[in-house]
Amino acid sequence: MTESSPQAHNLDPWLDAYAARAETLAVSEVRALFSVVSRPEVVSLAGGMPYVAALPKETLAKAYADTMAKRGLLAIQYGGGQGDLTLRDQIRELMALEGIHSSVEDLVVTTGSQHGLDMLAGLFLDKGDVVLAEGPSYVGAIGIFRHYEAHIEHVHTDHDGMSPEALQESIDRMKADGRTIKFLYLVPNFANPSGVTLSAERRPKILEICKREHILIIEDNPYGLLYFDKPSPAAVRSMDEDGVVYLGSFSKILAPGFRVGYVLAPPAIRDKMVLAQESALLCPSSFTQMMISEFLANADWKGQIDTFRGVYRERRDAALNAMHEYLPNLETTRPDGGFYLWITLPEGIDSKAMLPLAVKELVAYTPGTAFFGDGSGQRYLRVCYSFPTPDRINLGIKRLANVINLQTELLDTFQQKGK
Amino acid sequence: MTESSPQAHNLDPWLDAYAARAETLAVSEVRALFSVVSRPEVVSLAGGMPYVAALPKETLAKAYADTMAKRGLLAIQYGGGQGDLTLRDQIRELMALEGIHSSVEDLVVTTGSQHGLDMLAGLFLDKGDVVLAEGPSYVGAIGIFRHYEAHIEHVHTDHDGMSPEALQESIDRMKADGRTIKFLYLVPNFANPSGVTLSAERRPKILEICKREHILIIEDNPYGLLYFDKPSPAAVRSMDEDGVVYLGSFSKILAPGFRVGYVLAPPAIRDKMVLAQESALLCPSSFTQMMISEFLANADWKGQIDTFRGVYRERRDAALNAMHEYLPNLETTRPDGGFYLWITLPEGIDSKAMLPLAVKELVAYTPGTAFFGDGSGQRYLRVCYSFPTPDRINLGIKRLANVINLQTELLDTFQQKGK
Repeated sequence: MTESSPQAHNLDPWLDAYAARAETLAVSEVRALFSVVSRPEVVSLAGGMPYVAALPKETLAKAYADTMAKRGLLAIQYGGGQGDLTLRDQIRELMALEGIHSSVEDLVVTTGSQHGLDMLAGLFLDKGDVVLAEGPSYVGAIGIFRHYEAHIEHVHTDHDGMSPEALQESIDRMKADGRTIKFLYLVPNFANPSGVTLSAERRPKILEICKREHILIIEDNPYGLLYFDKPSPAAVRSMDEDGVVYLGSFSKILAPGFRVGYVLAPPAIRDKMVLAQESALLCPSSFTQMMISEFLANADWKGQIDTFRGVYRERRDAALNAMHEYLPNLETTRPDGGFYLWITLPEGIDSKAMLPLAVKELVAYTPGTAFFGDGSGQRYLRVCYSFPTPDRINLGIKRLANVINLQTELLDTFQQKGK
Repeated sequence: MTESSPQAHNLDPWLDAYAARAETLAVSEVRALFSVVSRPEVVSLAGGMPYVAALPKETLAKAYADTMAKRGLLAIQYGGGQGDLTLRDQIRELMALEGIHSSVEDLVVTTGSQHGLDMLAGLFLDKGDVVLAEGPSYVGAIGIFRHYEAHIEHVHTDHDGMSPEALQESIDRMKADGRTIKFLYLVPNFANPSGVTLSAERRPKILEICKREHILIIEDNPYGLLYFDKPSPAAVRSMDEDGVVYLGSFSKILAPGFRVGYVLAPPAIRDKMVLAQESALLCPSSFTQMMISEFLANADWKGQIDTFRGVYRERRDAALNAMHEYLPNLETTRPDGGFYLWITLPEGIDSKAMLPLAVKELVAYTPGTAFFGDGSGQRYLRVCYSFPTPDRINLGIKRLANVINLQTELLDTFQQKGK
């Protein structure tokens, strides 16, 4: 049992009363880092925060004024469990940018796409069920799947995303073991944490395998519109309606503080999502939904996304240039969008064990182990370049290089002595 | 299996894939009513909507402006999983009005208190566990407990709230049956749907029984500050820290569209709540939390609550006067605060069967069966007087009287023929 506080554990008078699923709650390695890295002298390449300062306050002020003028009483009232109809219609336009066509009936607005994923996991996962996912995969998704007592099976993923051959192998192995696979969880564009994109060639292959094997795909796409040079390949959902549940979010293309995301699902699943949402929180916030609706109606939201693209492209460049300058021998992914680099350390260096040393050198990152459900990933680390300025990114990676180089030297000395 | 749409059920290609808990999702009788009663000619005494028009727009505009001026970048960013520290400190002041003393460490801000209850249920309820609750109890809580596959045991409740003797009897019976009781769910003030308040005399008795029997109390108090004449009795949480989890909400004293509630819990439970919240939705909305924080810091929020009290007192009076005028022979509760009357129909009349006739007469209410986990409650109905104006309340109850009187006449005729 993982406890955030052993003291509290010992004194807890209700220790005998918890449900089995309470034992699955663990402190996320990413979230636990936040307290350490909030000191201003630390360059944080850890948490995945968007650079919301690139969003003009005037734009939001207008969205607020318009919301209250047009729908003020509705905005502060309870709303429907499926989410605001006007916003759902606007989300259709947004999704059309990635080739997805849908109806407002099949959309559910959620309190961030995280809660959409939580509800989907609740709908599908019984204890011991298998979820297939990229390796590495999103830490927040791993936490959810673990909470529902699922087994997370990571499928080999390279610079073109998940390998279809490896997917088939994983499925065959799981089936041979008599296990029940409930869905494939996929972050196809500029994935968190790897930064890689599932290639256009592989997408229909992944879909075909899942169709043949009767495995639902959950396509989680918060970063797709934040491409740097050319649009990301067509969404898997654009190729199939019945077999894909699609998750989207305003957290990265607008701001996460509103907690608004959405789920596009086949009708029967969507019906259950609405009921799950009504049970869990009655309805998503009318107020934040309508603010976003007014933003989409009146602001140059496509221009705003272009602004974010420019900011993150510059920071990706700063990160890759710093890697080239200070750590030229390390393997890193080269993202075409999004927030993340995925760095492979020299053999023998454990990114989790190294983290305290890095924080001492005033730089923070997320250890690779956070992104695997099976405790592996020690040789990797995630660098998030979305929030610090390019200068700070450079400084952070310079500090990181000092720590890694010192570790490498120590390792070499140790290994030579061992000879 | 309860389905919202039998058609979708038959066509659902994923019917074999759902988790066991997905079968527990049912359309709430209250929520399902919303579509029927949204026609303006229908007087809705059904949904429990607060009268948010009593909240001045200028007050909110100032809270928005202050939020963006002081903490604009934080308000639109991800926040901590426990909720905003400033807001938590202000919630302490709010709770002190009901005799509760606490520390910011023990508070968790949630996406409405509904989500707090959902997370608590997730922490404690395994399939088949028993939840003790008033009879009748809050429909949204019943939905949650059912979703976690718990057994809801209603304890006899009269005009002074839950009976301590009946509570002890229920506990003894459950224990004799070898069942595991996980907690007592209590809405002590102006309860939804009954409108009754647990008397000051009974509170320590209920607490004492639960302490002795090692049963956690979940005290849900969204209406406590909306008393009409004198403050409600001291909260159960004010008498005990370790054995009570307390739920509060801004939905009724400010506005539900922000979806902000809170949970005050003993440390070990609070730790788990934070982890559950991080898993389910990363963090509550920074934006709506900070808006409320600025409202509490700068607006006359106590005066605002007084305004709401006045509005609801007038409407309670309108409802009771109309009952006296049109349905003098029916038993009704006489709430000292909150939103609801609980009406007992003449024997032989089923409130659920009568509802379509009422809607035909252009009045809507909520049938009593919504508020019992065991399908009982046919003889009762809930009238919510919070939203319609006093004139409309009078008209609604007049129409309701026509329907009930017609039913009574039919019943009498039928019974006389039967003799």
